[in-house]
Amino acid sequence: METADLGLPVDVPSTALFTDHYELTMLQAALEAGTAERRSVFEVFTRRLPDGRRYGVVAGTGRVLDAVENFRFDSDVLGFLREREIVDEETLQWLAGYRFSGDIWGYPEGEVYFPGSPIMRVEGTFAECVLLETVILSILNHDSAVAAAASRMASAAGDRPLIEMGARRTHELAAVAAARSAYVGGFATTSDLASGFRYGIPTVGTSAHAFTLLHDTERDAFRAQIDSLGRDTTLLVDTYDVAEAVRVAVEIAGPELGAVRIDSGDLLLVAHRVRQQLDALGATGTKIVVTSDLDEYAIASLAAAPVDAYGVGTQLVTGSGHPTCSMVYKLVARAESADPKAPLVPVAKKASGGKTSIGGRKWAARRLDEHGVAEAEVIGTGPVPAELADRQLLVQLVKGGQVVARESLDVVRDRHAAARANLPLSATQLSRGEPVLPTEYL
Amino acid sequence: METADLGLPVDVPSTALFTDHYELTMLQAALEAGTAERRSVFEVFTRRLPDGRRYGVVAGTGRVLDAVENFRFDSDVLGFLREREIVDEETLQWLAGYRFSGDIWGYPEGEVYFPGSPIMRVEGTFAECVLLETVILSILNHDSAVAAAASRMASAAGDRPLIEMGARRTHELAAVAAARSAYVGGFATTSDLASGFRYGIPTVGTSAHAFTLLHDTERDAFRAQIDSLGRDTTLLVDTYDVAEAVRVAVEIAGPELGAVRIDSGDLLLVAHRVRQQLDALGATGTKIVVTSDLDEYAIASLAAAPVDAYGVGTQLVTGSGHPTCSMVYKLVARAESADPKAPLVPVAKKASGGKTSIGGRKWAARRLDEHGVAEAEVIGTGPVPAELADRQLLVQLVKGGQVVARESLDVVRDRHAAARANLPLSATQLSRGEPVLPTEYL
Repeated sequence: METADLGLPVDVPSTALFTDHYELTMLQAALEAGTAERRSVFEVFTRRLPDGRRYGVVAGTGRVLDAVENFRFDSDVLGFLREREIVDEETLQWLAGYRFSGDIWGYPEGEVYFPGSPIMRVEGTFAECVLLETVILSILNHDSAVAAAASRMASAAGDRPLIEMGARRTHELAAVAAARSAYVGGFATTSDLASGFRYGIPTVGTSAHAFTLLHDTERDAFRAQIDSLGRDTTLLVDTYDVAEAVRVAVEIAGPELGAVRIDSGDLLLVAHRVRQQLDALGATGTKIVVTSDLDEYAIASLAAAPVDAYGVGTQLVTGSGHPTCSMVYKLVARAESADPKAPLVPVAKKASGGKTSIGGRKWAARRLDEHGVAEAEVIGTGPVPAELADRQLLVQLVKGGQVVARESLDVVRDRHAAARANLPLSATQLSRGEPVLPTEYL
Repeated sequence: METADLGLPVDVPSTALFTDHYELTMLQAALEAGTAERRSVFEVFTRRLPDGRRYGVVAGTGRVLDAVENFRFDSDVLGFLREREIVDEETLQWLAGYRFSGDIWGYPEGEVYFPGSPIMRVEGTFAECVLLETVILSILNHDSAVAAAASRMASAAGDRPLIEMGARRTHELAAVAAARSAYVGGFATTSDLASGFRYGIPTVGTSAHAFTLLHDTERDAFRAQIDSLGRDTTLLVDTYDVAEAVRVAVEIAGPELGAVRIDSGDLLLVAHRVRQQLDALGATGTKIVVTSDLDEYAIASLAAAPVDAYGVGTQLVTGSGHPTCSMVYKLVARAESADPKAPLVPVAKKASGGKTSIGGRKWAARRLDEHGVAEAEVIGTGPVPAELADRQLLVQLVKGGQVVARESLDVVRDRHAAARANLPLSATQLSRGEPVLPTEYL
């Protein structure tokens, strides 16, 4: 097999199959009609943010670049398409030579976005661009949804570290991408080993109720954990009686005990009690980690509690109520003919039933106020005003088919923190509201 | 590499890395304490259904079996764990020889479930079972959430076929599993080529607004599509003016036109108008496909509309408001010693803060009323009452580490339809309510 082997348990040999059937049949029809080679501009954007959200977070860009690089139709894939009679032989021939050769521009990963922001722009022939629609949207819609939730949680947590632990609540490979997005949004660590392996994100772990229940007594379990993992470990103290567990934990580990984890009950109340007890036992340096269906609101409500770290699972990996963004991939301009020099014509859906969009290849810039704080997302199709020239948001990601903008996740994470910090203060209010920046069209 | 290569863009070499960090550190501590080999029983269950739902749907079982078979620690994975100092050398040695050798029982895939149903039971040593927690929960939580939404949509759609088209709204590999779950829940086809390749699900496609916009006129676009794909194709008629598009479509394709797709506007109203227009033009056999943010409620509201098929995306792949189930994997019994013949002791978390569970290895049976309709989910830890002996729900899936229950997706799909049909009529009410069967503990 020429291309990437996704192997078991997935067994999809190339990112080219992460594609909707109609992309290929449209390609066939356009090839036959002589329109497939018309130069085209597609843009990714959302018409709105999830209800009540103040800003969006671009995430997944690095994964999109991987997917575009590995988008190839090898013999297995072509054999499948032939056997199913999805497209004709001419189209299969065309697909066999497929390699994206166009340009991609986009908001750099970690940047914030607003309704209408042209988050990504893909330019090339209609044929080569239309095929990328599904996989680009899959990645950006998933990863950005998780990153947006992570960013809100990170704001709410302030300086306290957040641990991503939602792998068990989402598809096993979505979990790997979710841990990546959480890191971009401001999480410190993850429980997911695969994301440590693939992306180098620091992994951490505590222990589960099963470990305590395995042993004859809680004392035996704590002893086993400390003997093996050291006093710096985190003991789970809510299997039976929390106060008794804390007492035994400090008795065994001494004041050097790393941390205790509380995974049930009224976390605010229990954290206060446990802190008092730990302090009274001399374990003033022992930390308190809380978990148990946390979301950004629960995290915020614990701001005054003596909590040292938050573990977040379900609500993170499901986007805290918004598991997907509503990003779309729309043709906004195309040439009048297959001549590579033919001028581009703006195009847009115009039916009355909604879902209209604005035609034309767009630029975007973030205008700042006199204090250097962002005050508007400005989008246009004409020349860029001089005063916005150095505030433009789109950067080149792919040039003539070659990826030109690989970045480390730490760069992306820092960019997100900076972009969020540059928004008006109301951006990090958790209450429902309008986007914190208005979108202005020039 | 000895194990499955997930390749780009994922690059996780084995399902063993779809695991939380703490599973491995618990293993290390248990190995050192001499408790790792205690015979153990873990069960997967939910404490509740998503708010308002009447039943759950077990999905992903087949994928769990693949994941268990491919759960191996090869040299790449061991190298990663060593470099990160996640576990010690003794534990790495143990992991190098890992192969699940125990038994797994479960509700057969496609079966319905209720709060407390022991959906899956994993038995073996603590060490070999605890490691499987994360990947089993990832798969079942994701796949069952999508299948439950699919099942409600299929009920609402009645005899009209449903097309899964949500790939662009979720992680690119979650999309493949989502298409599989949708099929289990009753969908007929999918747009996702990868799921066609991997699972043999029939794939279909129509066309996008971009295809119309690529061409100089809508007429040119329709002509191109019909010339290439035949009169039986589905034309998208809402790019500009629906009535004009329908007129042109029938003019070009004649009454043999396969279908038209409506993707925006008031679908109820537009579908009636389009049906009248098609009939007036003699295209009485031309079908109407509707798409556009459909969920089970929107589908139900279109029951009286002249619609022939529904395409569903976002709401399907995100579980229609419930993108994950709350399945947990709990130790319910374990031996008193590492002696393989030591008796099992029921165990359960007992702290006051909620999240308690019922210890002991469980059986489950569905009791029927005098008409043969399901009336209760009966769960027990003692002997099975004679009258329920042939209504037991758990079947053996893995025996001594060998998968013994591979099934085709069509068998699973048929099982789901039969299980749903055997529930009281109120099961398929879309309104919010209690689980349609009570759970009784014996």
